[in-house]
Amino acid sequence: MNFKYNNVYLEDVSSIAGPYESEGPLGRCYDKVCKDFYCGQKTWEQAECRMLIDSVDLLLYKTNKLKNEIDLHLSGDLLNQIVSTNYASASLKIPLIGIYSACSTSVLGMILGSNMIEANQIKNCLVSTSSHNNGAEKQFRQPVEYGGPKKKTTTFTVTGAASFLFTNKKSRVKIESATIGKVIDLGITDSNNMGAVMAPSAAETIYNHLEKLKRDIDYYDLILTGDLGIYGKKILKEYMKTEYNIDLKNYDDTACMIYDLESQPVYAGGSGPACLPLVFNSYIYPKMITGEISRVLLVATGALLSTTMVNQKLSIPSISHAISLEVEDDIL
Amino acid sequence: MNFKYNNVYLEDVSSIAGPYESEGPLGRCYDKVCKDFYCGQKTWEQAECRMLIDSVDLLLYKTNKLKNEIDLHLSGDLLNQIVSTNYASASLKIPLIGIYSACSTSVLGMILGSNMIEANQIKNCLVSTSSHNNGAEKQFRQPVEYGGPKKKTTTFTVTGAASFLFTNKKSRVKIESATIGKVIDLGITDSNNMGAVMAPSAAETIYNHLEKLKRDIDYYDLILTGDLGIYGKKILKEYMKTEYNIDLKNYDDTACMIYDLESQPVYAGGSGPACLPLVFNSYIYPKMITGEISRVLLVATGALLSTTMVNQKLSIPSISHAISLEVEDDIL
Repeated sequence: MNFKYNNVYLEDVSSIAGPYESEGPLGRCYDKVCKDFYCGQKTWEQAECRMLIDSVDLLLYKTNKLKNEIDLHLSGDLLNQIVSTNYASASLKIPLIGIYSACSTSVLGMILGSNMIEANQIKNCLVSTSSHNNGAEKQFRQPVEYGGPKKKTTTFTVTGAASFLFTNKKSRVKIESATIGKVIDLGITDSNNMGAVMAPSAAETIYNHLEKLKRDIDYYDLILTGDLGIYGKKILKEYMKTEYNIDLKNYDDTACMIYDLESQPVYAGGSGPACLPLVFNSYIYPKMITGEISRVLLVATGALLSTTMVNQKLSIPSISHAISLEVEDDIL
Repeated sequence: MNFKYNNVYLEDVSSIAGPYESEGPLGRCYDKVCKDFYCGQKTWEQAECRMLIDSVDLLLYKTNKLKNEIDLHLSGDLLNQIVSTNYASASLKIPLIGIYSACSTSVLGMILGSNMIEANQIKNCLVSTSSHNNGAEKQFRQPVEYGGPKKKTTTFTVTGAASFLFTNKKSRVKIESATIGKVIDLGITDSNNMGAVMAPSAAETIYNHLEKLKRDIDYYDLILTGDLGIYGKKILKEYMKTEYNIDLKNYDDTACMIYDLESQPVYAGGSGPACLPLVFNSYIYPKMITGEISRVLLVATGALLSTTMVNQKLSIPSISHAISLEVEDDIL
């Protein structure tokens, strides 16, 4: 399903990163960094919740807004019952739309918010997401303290939180169009190879987006998938070529950008709903503000992994959503 | 946050109920009934997923629609990573918006879909939700096979699935307005007293809805909360009176309607995201079609319970969303 927008803008963004991210190549680009996994809290889950609240507070500070000036908050995360979102929301007191779309949560929230702003149903909204390496590992695989060996196709869940302020007030970065994806399941059961799970859904969403909006791949200065990792990125390129005869150009994957894959112990790269927003907010958004990059397609990729279903020998479905952002040349 | 609609209609609904529900007072009202907890599947989670798919297929059959004629599917459920929704969606192949709002999921989905139809962004959408008693008990409390004693304030998660088809095509039941709630946390930590957790958030959402839309409580022929149960319903009435000086009139709670509380072993009543939709779709919607009831406010109540956070001694937040449905007199 596709949407076009004429009236939706990204006013500003925020990014809070954890210890591994702060030591990565974008370490100096984040608004704030937590040097350990606890961020002053007692548990990892509470740390993630704290980062989510901080990312909202920081963004409100940057944009000089009060909480009661925000119409809606759209947010989700990886933890069961999206607890980071729900517990953060209890202290934020902004009407909440809770979403779950695994690592494609950020773009799903952006699309829902953009639709409502475009229709004048709201004047602005916050979109947030977060993830936490140790919290996610404990929930989905094994506690990190076990120190078990990992497959090289494994990705490393990003620790961090990011928020976006969408508005109907004209600003430098315009939300131009979007595509809601379908759930795809090609039968992969290996929960340590999320890149392979997600690549086909990323391909379908990119193809549908280009096809329905009648544009070529080189319309975009940059196409950015969320968290395919080294191997998933390679699969996506091959899949786009063989399935749709499209050569992916001007393309990168944020899983391969957020860490130094040579020196950091992160296997095939980053993952988690915070991966794409952290890279976009800290590194790509500033390039749009300066005009270095003009048209960006964000394709957030979600592996709908469930330990319950994997234990029942079912395969892992996935979904990807895309949103197109463009620089408004007459505004700087 | 409030919304008004002029262009959104409920075309039809479906309901699939489990064994306890089929033996309750509305047993003969459901479209389909599963006489055991497995519905021909190997596990409870897969049974829930099956019921969700069946509720969609049944609704498409009733409305004479093909899957590719549906623009969007908005769905969520209680299981971790909303797996019933995600696995159902892999076979339905309709673009998916996955939401998580615990037992208030149904109304959240209805609001998001209504907003997009009102704005002509989509022409129709399916909204679904499901829950499964044994699946939910295993995940949130103890496996039912343990047979542990229960507090009398405990509610009994409904087994079933329900779907709604929303459309821009005029029909008997119009979607009139809606209110998105805020997360409330009054410090309750007892995961066996969800009614007490949710009542204050139901009260705030009802109050905001009436206040912002400038209408009295008797505007509605029926106000229906989701799953407060016997004790939560009593708390809501008292809370509305003391906090907002409002006497709740024409009011009932679907938790107290779905079972025979005298004879069925369900403690304080039903719960789960399927509770309100099953009662509405099987019992209230037909009364709207015949004109017996004209204006209905559905207030779905969600306790954002997480075993992780309860084990960390945190209290349980809650959220409620409301949607107003009205009979179009000139259409039968």
